Amino acid sequence: MSVNLSVFDAFHPINGLKMGYSNAGIKQTERPDVVVFELAQGATSAGVFTQNAFCAAPVQICKAHLQQASTQYLLINTGNANAGTGEPGYADAMAICQALADAKGVDVRSVLPFSTGVIGERLPLAKITSALPSALNTMDAGNWFAASRGIMTTDTLSKGTSCQFEYQGTTFSISGISKGAGMIKPNMATMLGFIATDAKVSKEILQAICHELAEKSFNRITIDGDTSTNDSCILMATGASGGAELTDKNDAFYGVLKAQLEKVFICLAQAIVRDGEGASKFVSINVSGCNNNAEALEIAYTVAHSPLVKTALFASDANWGRILAAVGRSHVKDIRVEDIQIHLDEVCIVNDGARAEDYTEEAGSAVMAQDELSINISMGRGTASETVWTTDLSHDYVSINADYRS
Amino acid sequence: MSVNLSVFDAFHPINGLKMGYSNAGIKQTERPDVVVFELAQGATSAGVFTQNAFCAAPVQICKAHLQQASTQYLLINTGNANAGTGEPGYADAMAICQALADAKGVDVRSVLPFSTGVIGERLPLAKITSALPSALNTMDAGNWFAASRGIMTTDTLSKGTSCQFEYQGTTFSISGISKGAGMIKPNMATMLGFIATDAKVSKEILQAICHELAEKSFNRITIDGDTSTNDSCILMATGASGGAELTDKNDAFYGVLKAQLEKVFICLAQAIVRDGEGASKFVSINVSGCNNNAEALEIAYTVAHSPLVKTALFASDANWGRILAAVGRSHVKDIRVEDIQIHLDEVCIVNDGARAEDYTEEAGSAVMAQDELSINISMGRGTASETVWTTDLSHDYVSINADYRS
Repeated sequence: MSVNLSVFDAFHPINGLKMGYSNAGIKQTERPDVVVFELAQGATSAGVFTQNAFCAAPVQICKAHLQQASTQYLLINTGNANAGTGEPGYADAMAICQALADAKGVDVRSVLPFSTGVIGERLPLAKITSALPSALNTMDAGNWFAASRGIMTTDTLSKGTSCQFEYQGTTFSISGISKGAGMIKPNMATMLGFIATDAKVSKEILQAICHELAEKSFNRITIDGDTSTNDSCILMATGASGGAELTDKNDAFYGVLKAQLEKVFICLAQAIVRDGEGASKFVSINVSGCNNNAEALEIAYTVAHSPLVKTALFASDANWGRILAAVGRSHVKDIRVEDIQIHLDEVCIVNDGARAEDYTEEAGSAVMAQDELSINISMGRGTASETVWTTDLSHDYVSINADYRS
Repeated sequence: MSVNLSVFDAFHPINGLKMGYSNAGIKQTERPDVVVFELAQGATSAGVFTQNAFCAAPVQICKAHLQQASTQYLLINTGNANAGTGEPGYADAMAICQALADAKGVDVRSVLPFSTGVIGERLPLAKITSALPSALNTMDAGNWFAASRGIMTTDTLSKGTSCQFEYQGTTFSISGISKGAGMIKPNMATMLGFIATDAKVSKEILQAICHELAEKSFNRITIDGDTSTNDSCILMATGASGGAELTDKNDAFYGVLKAQLEKVFICLAQAIVRDGEGASKFVSINVSGCNNNAEALEIAYTVAHSPLVKTALFASDANWGRILAAVGRSHVKDIRVEDIQIHLDEVCIVNDGARAEDYTEEAGSAVMAQDELSINISMGRGTASETVWTTDLSHDYVSINADYRS
């Protein structure tokens, strides 16, 4: 089940970027499970990765390689996360990078590896290296849709978006794909996001944009509060559109490009929530009136992670007491219940520390019955605000996660 | 469903403490829903309460009254939590205290109120005050079992324990009851614990013991990570056993009494987990080898609250990757996966940052199939350790919490 998510296949090609794909038979028998991205010379790349202390071997290598060389290839496999595999897992990830580097005659440090799937099992090296030639035979800028399908694991739908915009007479394109159906999937499979533009952007600026936008998108979604060991988000800029390189945050193009990329990042992040495990609702939790952003985030996540709020959402039960209690147990100091207002969409449910006087169960239940809704919490003590997107907690969530390995 | 919990009805009376009970018809039609405790002159009382910022009116009054006067009466009702009721709720709680104070000719500040049940609804004052005379007519030291039933809400079983011990020729008794089937019950109903002994203990020492033991028991259990607005734990010492008052932590009796009380506190706290909503397993999470206790607790709670660990427990799936990932995403700095060992009971599942070499699925699954098991996590970086008790996340949990108000 997914919430208002449909398959996207109208990608704009990004000049300077080709993709190839192949079926290596790791877990899939028909769908591609190995995807290769190839960046033309002069492209820049940036990445943000999981903050889980036990990040997987491919994540460790990505971080190092991004520092050490210009990225030319991304090598992605599904079906095996190469996580919890210790030193041998690190050697395996390096081995598939080396196989691709040898095939293309490039430095191994120009290859970034990404793995997603079952943990604790060794990577099937022979399957992946055997699939490389056929993947490299398919390299084409028009393969975004195939790539979006090739990075799926238990996603019910492939996820992607694309847009174009004009700036000073030049048309720029952005395309992106993502995968994941939870901040952590069963067995620690992963959130992955790959976004590319043909704008020319210095590596330093690209890294700043990637960091800021991942923070506003992939780091604002939560299904169950768990964080994968493999989460990775890569932003690429080929520069093939021509024009001067963006090297300065004060350049007007910086704001224009970032605004366009932000829409793509948020669309891809929200797609993961919409396809969340067992999700029947897409919920925006908006917390405003806080002293600072950390405070707003703490409250938003406490509400978003509360099993009682999530089961009430599943039941379409306008249970304002559970929301209020979750706010109250957040680790924010000196909260005064009298200052707080809570709305479901436009319907005021809590005012002056108690149920709003004109609140009716009918009005609250009508909002809760929607498949998209917002919980708007105003703390009445400052000007900072944050938004987090999440889903409900359903029987399907329990079934999916209890039955995955059985 | 409950896990290895049976009804306890062999309470030792505590001299100097009587209980009465009555049915006020708040939600229950037959079972008592109003309970009164009466302490003899000279008794001391101590309490610890919810840290939820939006604590309910009765909790606010308990805290104030405990400071202002010697407690003589506890007045408990189920069926209505008097939470989220603002200023009128505070006045209601004071009104029932005043009714009891008037009936017994005592100062209102010697009465402590406790309410548990539905939130956001005004307390039914007339029902409660009408039930007081019949409750006061039943006052007897032998009413512990009736009281344990009279404080139940959606608990499937009443909860209590009792013991005696000798010290320097005197026999001391301890009895206690608790209620709750989650750290927060649907609609913010509550964890309550009432423990009494006939030892003579100064109020200061009693408060120190109550605080320390609640921390080791009621504050080490978690069903779903939510914290009620009404949680309260009261420790009473009547002094009826005779003997000198305990006023000094260096007195040998301090350690003896505290050790006996600790067993009672832990038994009552674990009973709440055993009766946890939808619980099919009782799980001890032991985290050792930490730099300090805060670190050990953070890891233990992160594992205990992980929906993926909890659904794996429900499925009896020895999914070590989910446990390892939860440890990794805890907010503890500089964790090295190579230092960590994880055992299910005695079975080593993780060693050197990966699956233990001699681990077999059969051995892990055998432990996971038990209705009681421990997850033992050794961090290999210090000497501090902590234990938290929790349950699995089952379909019944979702059903109970999604269907409660429908």
